[in-house]
Amino acid sequence: MSERLQQFIAQHVPTIESHMYELVKEIRGPEMLKESMLYSLEAGGKRIRPLFVVAVCDMFNGLQPASYTVGATIEMIHTYSLIHDDLPCMDDDDMRRGKPTNHIVYGEALAVLAGDALNSLCFGVLARMPNVSAEQRLELVHMLSEGAGAEGMVGGQVLDMEGEKRQLNLAELENIHINKTGALLRFSIEAGAVLCNASQEEREALVDYAHHIGLAFQIQDDILDIEGTSEQLGKTAGKDVESDKSTYPALLTIDGAKQKLEEHYKLALAALDCLTVDSTLLREFANYIISRSN
Amino acid sequence: MSERLQQFIAQHVPTIESHMYELVKEIRGPEMLKESMLYSLEAGGKRIRPLFVVAVCDMFNGLQPASYTVGATIEMIHTYSLIHDDLPCMDDDDMRRGKPTNHIVYGEALAVLAGDALNSLCFGVLARMPNVSAEQRLELVHMLSEGAGAEGMVGGQVLDMEGEKRQLNLAELENIHINKTGALLRFSIEAGAVLCNASQEEREALVDYAHHIGLAFQIQDDILDIEGTSEQLGKTAGKDVESDKSTYPALLTIDGAKQKLEEHYKLALAALDCLTVDSTLLREFANYIISRSN
Repeated sequence: MSERLQQFIAQHVPTIESHMYELVKEIRGPEMLKESMLYSLEAGGKRIRPLFVVAVCDMFNGLQPASYTVGATIEMIHTYSLIHDDLPCMDDDDMRRGKPTNHIVYGEALAVLAGDALNSLCFGVLARMPNVSAEQRLELVHMLSEGAGAEGMVGGQVLDMEGEKRQLNLAELENIHINKTGALLRFSIEAGAVLCNASQEEREALVDYAHHIGLAFQIQDDILDIEGTSEQLGKTAGKDVESDKSTYPALLTIDGAKQKLEEHYKLALAALDCLTVDSTLLREFANYIISRSN
Repeated sequence: MSERLQQFIAQHVPTIESHMYELVKEIRGPEMLKESMLYSLEAGGKRIRPLFVVAVCDMFNGLQPASYTVGATIEMIHTYSLIHDDLPCMDDDDMRRGKPTNHIVYGEALAVLAGDALNSLCFGVLARMPNVSAEQRLELVHMLSEGAGAEGMVGGQVLDMEGEKRQLNLAELENIHINKTGALLRFSIEAGAVLCNASQEEREALVDYAHHIGLAFQIQDDILDIEGTSEQLGKTAGKDVESDKSTYPALLTIDGAKQKLEEHYKLALAALDCLTVDSTLLREFANYIISRSN
């Protein structure tokens, strides 16, 4: 990772996290519910989605307080999806990021409700953001509703579940990732464009970048499952092969997957060429995503 | 039930329902997910929350297409909460309204995701309503986020779960109902006030009405569990007593509960006295709620 990107992350992650924790702490609701919501939010992670909102705003207009708030809502949606994903009736995971999962600590019922509460919370937060126009706030609510729901993340999870039962082709595999992880990543980057009143052309270029970076992220995930160690990954390596899951290496061979990764990386950078502002930071994000080891 | 109220319900329920089904049918997402969402939406119910939005609008301004859309979102939030409530890790109910519950038909994983998708969907629907000002739409998103989430319905469910472990006093019991069922009912009635640009005074009177009508509804529920038959209720009568649940009759005796019901009924009607518009319909709703047998 470049020094500039390291600095950017070190500078902004604490602010993103404190915004997020504050939004839960100020809820006038049952303490146990808030504790359960905070437990999963505080479990860490790369915070890559909120960092993208901040990075896009930084690129256009310089920093904007609203980008932290929007970033916090995305991370809350992402977190609620992990809480529900880990449930016994879904992936049945007891550990995440080295800590017991939410339902192991708080019980399944509270885990379901903590996820539900995070989901509902985000939209109210977006609706009442100060110093953002009414039209921008409405657009963000609409976009997050699409990106998080049946037309985005949740839809992708259903496709993924359905896909587990059979062998997928490349188009089907791509469609799962475009929805399951891509939709929220796209929202992160497009939300930055909305906050900065980017032109339609700039917005399309960023959406294009988000599309390729999202797929690149997923391909690298699949490659790491084969080439990484459990120690590097913080989770069991080789799980995909063992469970006979449809992945890029399974469909394309490991070399084919690496070639596909390179293609998406180049297309992501090419999309940024359409921008007139300095996109160095987004390029460094792309570098990091394809070369990361965890 | 009065003839006028019967006519009102017969006139508006089909439109509310078709709005709701249309919102799901137009989703560009996995068919199985949409089917699961529709299954629970189509399972019926009194549709009392959306009817309140329409009734309040009718009282102030005459009918408004947006009141059907807002009503549909409330019914979708209510339905998602029932889907999640019925899960094995929550109330573990196999049947609801004479039909197998969502997870019995579609499996637990899809039931969780159908609930999640309905939750996220509603906010986008509110944000993009035509012929409603941006400020009104934002206020509705903010109000629904509060009413559905940790400060409202979900918070109330957590209080209810915590309360099952011990004997509650009247204030605690009331607080559960104010959140668990009252918050969404309040949203229904207040949303009507927002759509009609009601004055602050009118809005407060309606919120007061909603508060008392919500508690009256719950007390009548508790009374019916004791005095109703399973046939009337469409569910097993006597469950509360059997499970030693904290209810109004348990805390106040059956006569005390009936007296409390009467008190809230009178206070609901008194709140309407502050309005200058014709509130006959809301009075008839109040009559129906305290005299209903199912």
